[in-house]
Amino acid sequence: MSPVDLPISAIIYGFTQSAVAVMAAAAVLEAGKRPFDLFGMMVIAMAAALGGGTLRDLLLDRTVFWVADQTYLFVAMGAALLTFFLARRIDLPGRLFLIPDALGLALFTVAGCKVALLLETPWLVASFMGVITGVMGGIVRDVLCNEEPLVFQGPLYATAAWSGALLLIGLLQLQVDATLAALIAGTAIFLLRMAALYWDLGLPKYKRNSGGL
Amino acid sequence: MSPVDLPISAIIYGFTQSAVAVMAAAAVLEAGKRPFDLFGMMVIAMAAALGGGTLRDLLLDRTVFWVADQTYLFVAMGAALLTFFLARRIDLPGRLFLIPDALGLALFTVAGCKVALLLETPWLVASFMGVITGVMGGIVRDVLCNEEPLVFQGPLYATAAWSGALLLIGLLQLQVDATLAALIAGTAIFLLRMAALYWDLGLPKYKRNSGGL
Amino acid sequence: MSPVDLPISAIIYGFTQSAVAVMAAAAVLEAGKRPFDLFGMMVIAMAAALGGGTLRDLLLDRTVFWVADQTYLFVAMGAALLTFFLARRIDLPGRLFLIPDALGLALFTVAGCKVALLLETPWLVASFMGVITGVMGGIVRDVLCNEEPLVFQGPLYATAAWSGALLLIGLLQLQVDATLAALIAGTAIFLLRMAALYWDLGLPKYKRNSGGL
Repeated sequence: MSPVDLPISAIIYGFTQSAVAVMAAAAVLEAGKRPFDLFGMMVIAMAAALGGGTLRDLLLDRTVFWVADQTYLFVAMGAALLTFFLARRIDLPGRLFLIPDALGLALFTVAGCKVALLLETPWLVASFMGVITGVMGGIVRDVLCNEEPLVFQGPLYATAAWSGALLLIGLLQLQVDATLAALIAGTAIFLLRMAALYWDLGLPKYKRNSGGL
Repeated sequence: MSPVDLPISAIIYGFTQSAVAVMAAAAVLEAGKRPFDLFGMMVIAMAAALGGGTLRDLLLDRTVFWVADQTYLFVAMGAALLTFFLARRIDLPGRLFLIPDALGLALFTVAGCKVALLLETPWLVASFMGVITGVMGGIVRDVLCNEEPLVFQGPLYATAAWSGALLLIGLLQLQVDATLAALIAGTAIFLLRMAALYWDLGLPKYKRNSGGL
Repeated sequence: MSPVDLPISAIIYGFTQSAVAVMAAAAVLEAGKRPFDLFGMMVIAMAAALGGGTLRDLLLDRTVFWVADQTYLFVAMGAALLTFFLARRIDLPGRLFLIPDALGLALFTVAGCKVALLLETPWLVASFMGVITGVMGGIVRDVLCNEEPLVFQGPLYATAAWSGALLLIGLLQLQVDATLAALIAGTAIFLLRMAALYWDLGLPKYKRNSGGL
């Protein structure tokens, strides 16, 4: 490992732990609308928090991150339990889970993209690894909760992740400091997603055969 | 491979072959309620019988068990065909599949946990590998049959698997003989699951915002 | 790599690129019936085009084909975009996607089976790798589009793939030229699937307890 890898590994570690925590919290907030018991809710929170990074590690043939370091499991369980007991005491709006979800999307996308770049995959593959890591946890959560996955609903979900991943790759290409680039790209994804939710932005929905181009 | 691995490998082999057979049988019994043709039913039986162990092997970066040894494929196909022709001749109650399903849960959980321990994963990871190996086949089967997965229904499904996996790890820590520990943990999972079904036990289902703690 | 592998690798490469293109096109044609936006449609097309080969590579512990070579990503995106804009200009029948789907099934099954044979898996495993590679993309597409997977509907879907994979293995065993064997097996799968659709063939659907054998 060259000395320049050290800060990148630290960024990936910090981003991934934070992403695991907020995705677990978002999953409990969404699953709480349904009659799951405590264990079912924990299963969904773990699957949502760990699913994206697991798929990335399988695709890149790395050791799966939580198999190598069980701290991730404790963080996911701790965040899920904390959210569970807080949510039962305080009256929370049902759409609140969209905020930790957007934060998890941003953090996981940056972490996933950086891991792929460290392994020197081609740039398009690295940007897709970011998207996959970012969106997979939410897909797993929504499928298990029997909701239509957010990623297939309008407002710029995967698009925000992909733009941020490409921004990150561009900044690193321009020799921007790794920590700064990660913060800029992560903030861009989060703000883009929040703005899309607030103003209900989205790519136009095309219907097939709906007339000329 | 040290000499002490030999009996453990034999336990894993026996438990896994038995689990493959009973999970294939359970899948045919459940899929038989729906208008699948023979091949569709075989696909579901194979996916249910092999799904849990496949995910475990991918996560642990082992050679997938049935890729290395196609005996598992013959066992799964044989058990599925046998169940298919028996079930057509004899009038079976619709809930019968819960018994081979509970047996498969117990056998796969023990086998999955033991494989992880052999690879010296941390204990929490090993217990989760047991749960994943145990519950995944049933999830695949239920999703393909368009039923709500048993693991998300009340009576102590994943909880039984996790308790058994932790029991197994504890017994091995106390230097209990490996075969004996596997039998005790497997029996505990099966009986806990059967008891939960019989008396309709389960963790309380919490609703969010349902008042104070 | 022995000299005899070279043509086989070239066959696999050609078959896989073609399969990626037609599966992406089929996915856009099917997803076009639903109100997905452009990006959602691209996600479904990529997942359908790359899903089967990805699962095969994970199971066989190979480098995932599109991680090693991002040409596949450009082919999938190009085919999806082209189909998207063509389909909006020309009035296409809704069942048209069945033709590229059958072509993708044939090409992916042959490519999947050949990759497994190159890695010297047992013959039954190799035939199943063909089936998995062939049917997985369509399953992913149908699940994401919320349609019942084609593989579980009547007319000889997985059966056609499996027969073709076994035919390929038999031909290679009889020392038939590798390119010729691949073309024969691929054509057989495509024609069997088309014939099954045209004449509505299928294995009989058995209902459980529907009387004697």
